[in-house]
Amino acid sequence: MTKYKSLEYKNGVLRMLDQRKLPHEVSYVDFTDYRAVAIAIKDMVVRGAPAIGAAAAFALCLAAHRTANTETEKLKWELKQAGELIKQARPTAVNLCRAVDRVLNKMETSRGKGIDELIMTIEDEALEIAQEDVRANRAMALNGLSLVDDGARFIHHCNTGALATVDYGTALGIIRMAHEKGKKIFVYLDETRPRLQGARLSAWELRQLGIPHKVIVDSAAGYLMKNKKVDLVVVGCDRMVRNGDMANKIGTYSLAVLARSHGIPFYAAVPTSTIDMSLENGDAITIEERGAEEITRIGNEQITPEGTEVYNPAFDVTPWEYISAVVTEKGVVYPPYEAGLRRIMGTEKRKEN
Amino acid sequence: MTKYKSLEYKNGVLRMLDQRKLPHEVSYVDFTDYRAVAIAIKDMVVRGAPAIGAAAAFALCLAAHRTANTETEKLKWELKQAGELIKQARPTAVNLCRAVDRVLNKMETSRGKGIDELIMTIEDEALEIAQEDVRANRAMALNGLSLVDDGARFIHHCNTGALATVDYGTALGIIRMAHEKGKKIFVYLDETRPRLQGARLSAWELRQLGIPHKVIVDSAAGYLMKNKKVDLVVVGCDRMVRNGDMANKIGTYSLAVLARSHGIPFYAAVPTSTIDMSLENGDAITIEERGAEEITRIGNEQITPEGTEVYNPAFDVTPWEYISAVVTEKGVVYPPYEAGLRRIMGTEKRKEN
Repeated sequence: MTKYKSLEYKNGVLRMLDQRKLPHEVSYVDFTDYRAVAIAIKDMVVRGAPAIGAAAAFALCLAAHRTANTETEKLKWELKQAGELIKQARPTAVNLCRAVDRVLNKMETSRGKGIDELIMTIEDEALEIAQEDVRANRAMALNGLSLVDDGARFIHHCNTGALATVDYGTALGIIRMAHEKGKKIFVYLDETRPRLQGARLSAWELRQLGIPHKVIVDSAAGYLMKNKKVDLVVVGCDRMVRNGDMANKIGTYSLAVLARSHGIPFYAAVPTSTIDMSLENGDAITIEERGAEEITRIGNEQITPEGTEVYNPAFDVTPWEYISAVVTEKGVVYPPYEAGLRRIMGTEKRKEN
Repeated sequence: MTKYKSLEYKNGVLRMLDQRKLPHEVSYVDFTDYRAVAIAIKDMVVRGAPAIGAAAAFALCLAAHRTANTETEKLKWELKQAGELIKQARPTAVNLCRAVDRVLNKMETSRGKGIDELIMTIEDEALEIAQEDVRANRAMALNGLSLVDDGARFIHHCNTGALATVDYGTALGIIRMAHEKGKKIFVYLDETRPRLQGARLSAWELRQLGIPHKVIVDSAAGYLMKNKKVDLVVVGCDRMVRNGDMANKIGTYSLAVLARSHGIPFYAAVPTSTIDMSLENGDAITIEERGAEEITRIGNEQITPEGTEVYNPAFDVTPWEYISAVVTEKGVVYPPYEAGLRRIMGTEKRKEN
């Protein structure tokens, strides 16, 4: 287990590490109100598709814990309303709405129970989502091992470590596992503008794990590839759809095109919790646009002239053709992806819901 | 003429706009010591290949003005020493060492003159370098007009405007001329990490020129191209060599690969003062690596964990194959470039020096 935890739920309290304050301050905040969790997800106190999925599930636990309702049907109605609000926090990562739906489905199918039992059912399901994520990350990291040669030099984008998940990490999980298994590796961390998750969070995590790394500006990736300083690219994912197209942090697509152009493998670490078989291709994914201040200000520093307009999509879509392989906890899938994704998702024969 | 001036020389004083303080403060600094100018070039008070070329030439004027020597031969020796120091300020842009050499050559060929006359010769040559730059930029902008359709949407990298030159600009000069000639254009400005010249300087210039623009993070360029929001890319150049390979601000190469991959034209605005026919290809260009703080700190904000290492090449090399056309003040050159560059540089028949 990692020393720090992105989030932890116990007895009606969700404790989250405020990732906005890293790497300078390790500050945990206790949440008891689901609405505050929704705001924290929006404000990126917690981020990373698997982590916000778990946070959303636990937010429902908070809503259940603090209910004034004494009738199970009224509680169910209340939680469905809460779920709608939580889902609106961020649109792109599928984990968020899926976790909410999963907890609510569990609630709906738990007929004939009293309030306390219902709350316990909800908590159990949320905890199961969190535990599944940790198991999936370790399994995914082991599955990814075969893709990493001894001496491999990575480019990694954004943050996909223990901070982005419940524990261990997705793409950084593969890097971590390679390191734990004794492979000599080196990681170039894209700083990942605008929010600098690479420079702030991934550098912080790799430092604690003792994995050699350097931070680069995002635009230097092509130059490194051209100069043969990079053997592979690994990234996480916010939503992968049926054909293998995937939304991930802005800059992922540029990186994928550059990797292809230099003959460098480009791998995506994608737990099945991030795969959305209901969408046909990447065009159907909603891409969140975030506020101008993420670009115009850095901390207390105003960068641009006052009033400068920006275009700030938080994610982009990488078409499946650019992805060399998808590493999941159920195995590594190769392109074209639809058949392989159907197999691991167990949707070969029945229709998508 | 632009309202602000990157640099201006008069009577032994070089006044430069401190570009590190833009866009928040328009602060001019007067230099009388050539060594201070060399430091200012290194510290990027002034930057942009043509601007640092002119600054270097004027730095020699300062050295001449303040000389304690009363014999022309001793002054010449002193200025050659000064020239060596100035040349070391930054290695990549050819304009810097070329401007120094040009002034020194003029000095050497001015035999039999007194001290005052020699100083005047040096000043005249430096002023001529500066004036040539302004003329070249306007001519280049007019030559580039035919490449810009009405309604064109640009991506522009770094800063290549009046700030990067003596006046008017190179790639931003083309944008500016298209705007002045009534073409409706829109410009996406790469913020250009690490020093954010796009977000700070180009946004400041385009705002004053009334040219519609938005700032994007560098890594969003691919996503914009994929979504058909971009019609052409224009960039400046720090050194173009004989075969058309060119060094320019880090990120230029990534942008060129992305443009190629999306079938979008990628144009370089390159005054002949930036073309170095003495080098065969881009491998021979020295790429400056700059300090870690450019990445680890932004203003007063520490970004990375203390002690984090970075890799910070200030420039990259774009191979000629990725450049759709080179716009110079003597005309537009198309690939393969060597013959065309020889023609405009007047080196068809004689050997390179």
